[in-house]
Amino acid sequence: MDAIYILDILGTFAFAISGALVASRRNFDLFGVVIIAFATAVGGGMTRDVLIDAHPINWIGDLNYIWTILVAVACTYLFRSKIAPLSKTMFLFDTIGLGVFTLLGVQKGLNYDLHPFVALVMGMVSSVMGGVIRDVLTNRVPLIFKKEIYASACLLGGMVYLATYYFELPYTIQFSATMATVIIIRILAVKYKLQLPRIKDDVFGK
Amino acid sequence: MDAIYILDILGTFAFAISGALVASRRNFDLFGVVIIAFATAVGGGMTRDVLIDAHPINWIGDLNYIWTILVAVACTYLFRSKIAPLSKTMFLFDTIGLGVFTLLGVQKGLNYDLHPFVALVMGMVSSVMGGVIRDVLTNRVPLIFKKEIYASACLLGGMVYLATYYFELPYTIQFSATMATVIIIRILAVKYKLQLPRIKDDVFGK
Amino acid sequence: MDAIYILDILGTFAFAISGALVASRRNFDLFGVVIIAFATAVGGGMTRDVLIDAHPINWIGDLNYIWTILVAVACTYLFRSKIAPLSKTMFLFDTIGLGVFTLLGVQKGLNYDLHPFVALVMGMVSSVMGGVIRDVLTNRVPLIFKKEIYASACLLGGMVYLATYYFELPYTIQFSATMATVIIIRILAVKYKLQLPRIKDDVFGK
Repeated sequence: MDAIYILDILGTFAFAISGALVASRRNFDLFGVVIIAFATAVGGGMTRDVLIDAHPINWIGDLNYIWTILVAVACTYLFRSKIAPLSKTMFLFDTIGLGVFTLLGVQKGLNYDLHPFVALVMGMVSSVMGGVIRDVLTNRVPLIFKKEIYASACLLGGMVYLATYYFELPYTIQFSATMATVIIIRILAVKYKLQLPRIKDDVFGK
Repeated sequence: MDAIYILDILGTFAFAISGALVASRRNFDLFGVVIIAFATAVGGGMTRDVLIDAHPINWIGDLNYIWTILVAVACTYLFRSKIAPLSKTMFLFDTIGLGVFTLLGVQKGLNYDLHPFVALVMGMVSSVMGGVIRDVLTNRVPLIFKKEIYASACLLGGMVYLATYYFELPYTIQFSATMATVIIIRILAVKYKLQLPRIKDDVFGK
Repeated sequence: MDAIYILDILGTFAFAISGALVASRRNFDLFGVVIIAFATAVGGGMTRDVLIDAHPINWIGDLNYIWTILVAVACTYLFRSKIAPLSKTMFLFDTIGLGVFTLLGVQKGLNYDLHPFVALVMGMVSSVMGGVIRDVLTNRVPLIFKKEIYASACLLGGMVYLATYYFELPYTIQFSATMATVIIIRILAVKYKLQLPRIKDDVFGK
């Protein structure tokens, strides 16, 4: 569990930096940057906890999330010229965050006796809603709805977790299989520019 | 109550299709379409349940909502060339949804011992917030704030429900009167292009 | 406490008018104006209450908020040519609202046994989220992220409140010091156009 906690914090850190970068580009002031970093990093878990009535919610129950976010914002200010959002390190951290958030979301859902399918949705909410809130607050169409197989990676990762959970495999296997699924799918998606099918635009006219 | 449940599912179906159509036009991928359909269909009831602390919230407590939404998205993909969002069938389903969601919202508010006026607000939240969330997620100014007497139909429907409820009329009458109010007002509004008064723009300059 | 309640209502009134003015400029109909006024005035307290699981939430537990908002919208319609959003009276009311909402937010956080730092965040959520929701619903980038030291005034006000609270100073002093901090900082910020530092745009390229 300690390894997961460290990865959770690492993911929070990566998500916070991704939020801080988006906010900086939009010329937000320091306060705005902190808020967007915060929303990006804990927005998913917060939404999940409000929906399943899990109080205290994530960042209220554990102050380490807030400290991590503040450190991430400070790093963004200090090393801004060196942090490229698409760099391999950031991509890795971000993908780790995606995997851990998915796993913790599904797990929390199961702990709250939700139907496995709803628990799976909670895994996606945990990993995806932070970015959606970030994009809504910065007045963009959420990227997640258009780019990469970001969400699909979470969905499949969550399914793998559920499967390994029901077959009562050891926790390290549940964990490794879930993380590996998310990371591999995401890397493949970016490498081969995989996309989900769309409804053709022209069917609806202009 | 069974009739209401069927109409509730029918309304959910119509709202999900309306969400899927908006998302498709904006070129979202399959995942984005499902999320927008989901938010449109259950966003209102979900918001209501979170605000009045009614857990498990609508779609967590009853998986039929999720199945209905998935079927609606599948139908949108399969029959997309045949589903015109302004067609009479869709308009009817959508209006039924509006009426049922209003009624169920007010009813749930009363069951939770809210002041009748707050229960009325909950009726509107249930019927209207789904569309608002859909529009926020697709980065549009919520239509509801500008077009048709959509919300007014819900408000008056909710009032009729409250009145019939306090006079202890039979449930079938409460139900029929509420639905008829919503449906008739909406049809009249569309037919005669009724609009609520606005504050003149020019008063404020540009 | 009665004085605070009156100021709370006054702040609600000012926030509602600010929301109604924004909505009117965007050509919303009466319903849209009421919703935006509502979201602006009680959105902050509502978000806080949902996050800390304080039910019934603000406007459900006390109907006076709703009446105040309806009166504010009526005033906006009736006296629209006389209400300039930047007038000194409106600015004063708005700043009073900011101060009172901050104070009540921190106070409620402490009453719910939150860590003082989280209580401080709740003070900011109470005072700031209403405007953020208003801007998201009207499809603008939230002003708060870009303009004035609006949020900083709340942050410092909240800190002053926490300090006076821990030194167990009399409540009138806690109250006066908090309000004075928020009001003075905001006036100074507007007068001298103070701004928080930004991450330089050009670092990130276009």
